Amino acid sequence: MAKIKACVVGLGNRGYDIIRGVLLKNDDIEIISVCDVYEDRIARAAEKIKEAGSEPRGFTDYKEALAVKGLNAVFIFSDWSSHTEIAVYAMKQGIPVASEVGCEYSVENCLRLVKTQEETGTPYMFVENCCWGKEELLATSMARKKLFGTVVHCSGAYAHDLRHEIAYGHINRHYRFDNYLNRCCDNYPTHELGPIAKLLDINRGNRILTVSSFASKGAGLEEYISTRGDATEEMKSARFAQGDIITTVLTCAHGETVLLRLDTTLPRSYSRDFTVRGTKGMYMQDTNTVFLDGDEEFYEPVKYYEKALNNAVQFENDYLPDIWKIITPEARRAGHGGMDWFAYKGFTDALINKTEMPIDVYDAAVWQAVSVLSEISVKQGGAPQAMPDFTNGKWFKRARRDVCSL
Amino acid sequence: MAKIKACVVGLGNRGYDIIRGVLLKNDDIEIISVCDVYEDRIARAAEKIKEAGSEPRGFTDYKEALAVKGLNAVFIFSDWSSHTEIAVYAMKQGIPVASEVGCEYSVENCLRLVKTQEETGTPYMFVENCCWGKEELLATSMARKKLFGTVVHCSGAYAHDLRHEIAYGHINRHYRFDNYLNRCCDNYPTHELGPIAKLLDINRGNRILTVSSFASKGAGLEEYISTRGDATEEMKSARFAQGDIITTVLTCAHGETVLLRLDTTLPRSYSRDFTVRGTKGMYMQDTNTVFLDGDEEFYEPVKYYEKALNNAVQFENDYLPDIWKIITPEARRAGHGGMDWFAYKGFTDALINKTEMPIDVYDAAVWQAVSVLSEISVKQGGAPQAMPDFTNGKWFKRARRDVCSL
Repeated sequence: MAKIKACVVGLGNRGYDIIRGVLLKNDDIEIISVCDVYEDRIARAAEKIKEAGSEPRGFTDYKEALAVKGLNAVFIFSDWSSHTEIAVYAMKQGIPVASEVGCEYSVENCLRLVKTQEETGTPYMFVENCCWGKEELLATSMARKKLFGTVVHCSGAYAHDLRHEIAYGHINRHYRFDNYLNRCCDNYPTHELGPIAKLLDINRGNRILTVSSFASKGAGLEEYISTRGDATEEMKSARFAQGDIITTVLTCAHGETVLLRLDTTLPRSYSRDFTVRGTKGMYMQDTNTVFLDGDEEFYEPVKYYEKALNNAVQFENDYLPDIWKIITPEARRAGHGGMDWFAYKGFTDALINKTEMPIDVYDAAVWQAVSVLSEISVKQGGAPQAMPDFTNGKWFKRARRDVCSL
Repeated sequence: MAKIKACVVGLGNRGYDIIRGVLLKNDDIEIISVCDVYEDRIARAAEKIKEAGSEPRGFTDYKEALAVKGLNAVFIFSDWSSHTEIAVYAMKQGIPVASEVGCEYSVENCLRLVKTQEETGTPYMFVENCCWGKEELLATSMARKKLFGTVVHCSGAYAHDLRHEIAYGHINRHYRFDNYLNRCCDNYPTHELGPIAKLLDINRGNRILTVSSFASKGAGLEEYISTRGDATEEMKSARFAQGDIITTVLTCAHGETVLLRLDTTLPRSYSRDFTVRGTKGMYMQDTNTVFLDGDEEFYEPVKYYEKALNNAVQFENDYLPDIWKIITPEARRAGHGGMDWFAYKGFTDALINKTEMPIDVYDAAVWQAVSVLSEISVKQGGAPQAMPDFTNGKWFKRARRDVCSL
């Protein structure tokens, strides 16, 4: 296959960073078309791409951007509410899609994504970079080798203090402001859910049946804004619908439970809190700790963590996937310590080799539907909401697809 | 007041340990009556009490044990299902009650406890020792001084690998075997919920409105038993109803959410995971870590914990309650590092001084009702269950009652 001629839609921080750190460094890709609703972002991206020797055409309308002849792929980094619309349009044009993560706003939209992919056969990948996280893959590899025994429960979080990004969203042209103003739900579940769903074989022998969500009151953003001397009147008068901590519990067909936490408007240090619990052991990402059956127990947790902090490194030699053992400096620099490089490589490799996408349209539909169902569940005081079976029973027989060799 | 003449009901491990470590060391108490359904336990306890210079009468029937003349208190350590029955009977005799923790089996029983106390006026305390935990009190003290800002969410766990105790319950005459065989719920929520409820002023300006629970499949106990060469036929054929991880979410009248985890049948190190989240900071018991707004954030959690592990000790000088600053070696030795001493001292002090009990019958009812409602919620796939208002609206005006001066 010749180079993948690519269109990039959405040239804000995420799109620009991936162009610079990943797409321009990948010799399989040539960017020939870029799109954003803001002209200055188009100019910035085009400039960066020109430095690398290509001359993309720029558009403010994604349909025009996708009409450029010879496209083999579109990379979508636009705001969450536009991902599916653009992906559906591109698939109908036969242009393979790599979509950044986000959330959905209706179950119908998730279904539309699935049906369009099924009907067109156009390749689609949901680029959840955390599925390639070093710790997530180490723990998943250990789980595959049964070190944790029968896995019965997983938990994770998107725990990231985004108060500044959200509060100044209208100044920085970022969509989170409006999401937090209008919705109360787990609006960003996939960073932790993606790797968990992979580990639990969701859509491939297992299925999420119900989604229940609970919102704490929201006080973090408004208190934060009240301390900001440069807050606009709009910021100061904003009454955000979003709660500070969203707790979500998923139940699975084979009896596993999954606990998620959206945690973005209170002070804290970053964490995805990826945790795996099994009958023979456990993994905790926060402290990078493995506990195996028979290990010494401590009545005082702090003494345990003094001993066990970062003890998972001793398992890397035997269980860390090769991609992380031979990671290049360029991949590390590409973004998020290497995950971004691996994730987009997952897309281009599958496209070039015509193999199954590592994260497909069923994953995209289920993972993003969590946000939709979460919103209704919160409003109903935590009442469980039914997750549709987007595979329509095909999950019984669909084979496991890990994102890399484990 | 002369010495408190006490009856002790339930002389298994917990009862015996508290007699030895706490009650016999407390000069305000004289044990004159003991009761257990097993004669050998009566003999063991009586022997220990005799060593200390007293000569208690022994009974296998708690009503006879409570008929001994001159009793000023009963300490209840019997199996969970008998706590309320004995407490109700004692209160009706006018004998003040100190009840060990446990769970309840019906909301009606919780209500009976409340109504009996209200009608008789007999003092009652639910002796949740973890309300006196050093870390729990440090964090609560910091919360009272607003270091965490507005508290919006708390979480905790009873995370304790009890596979041996549960599996061998019929050999060791322990009630957990039957509980795990027959029920699937958070059967032991109060160690983490107690301190959280105190911090959130539950029943005193705030209230728990709903309980939602989710059970993972249960595989830990049966896999454990399958590895035990000395397992009985009964153990090997047992099919336990209990799931391995029970996730429970409570919603509160003032918008806080509470996350609980029962985690007793998988390998792990002990933890109560007491966590407080507010608009200005957070506390995490597992690593004994405080994060305050403005503290340095790390993208790699393990680097954060390398820096912040046990950093809460630096707040002890200013915020640790005095009882922990001047703790005696005897109190430390009494049990669970000192909590047991403080908790039972809380009862005898209130009894002697005729003050309000630090943990009262409303707390006992609400905290234990969580287990009952959890059981139904699990069966309904996590559907939220209504928590009765056992105070009947008195919670609006009831004043805060911390377990010690903070």
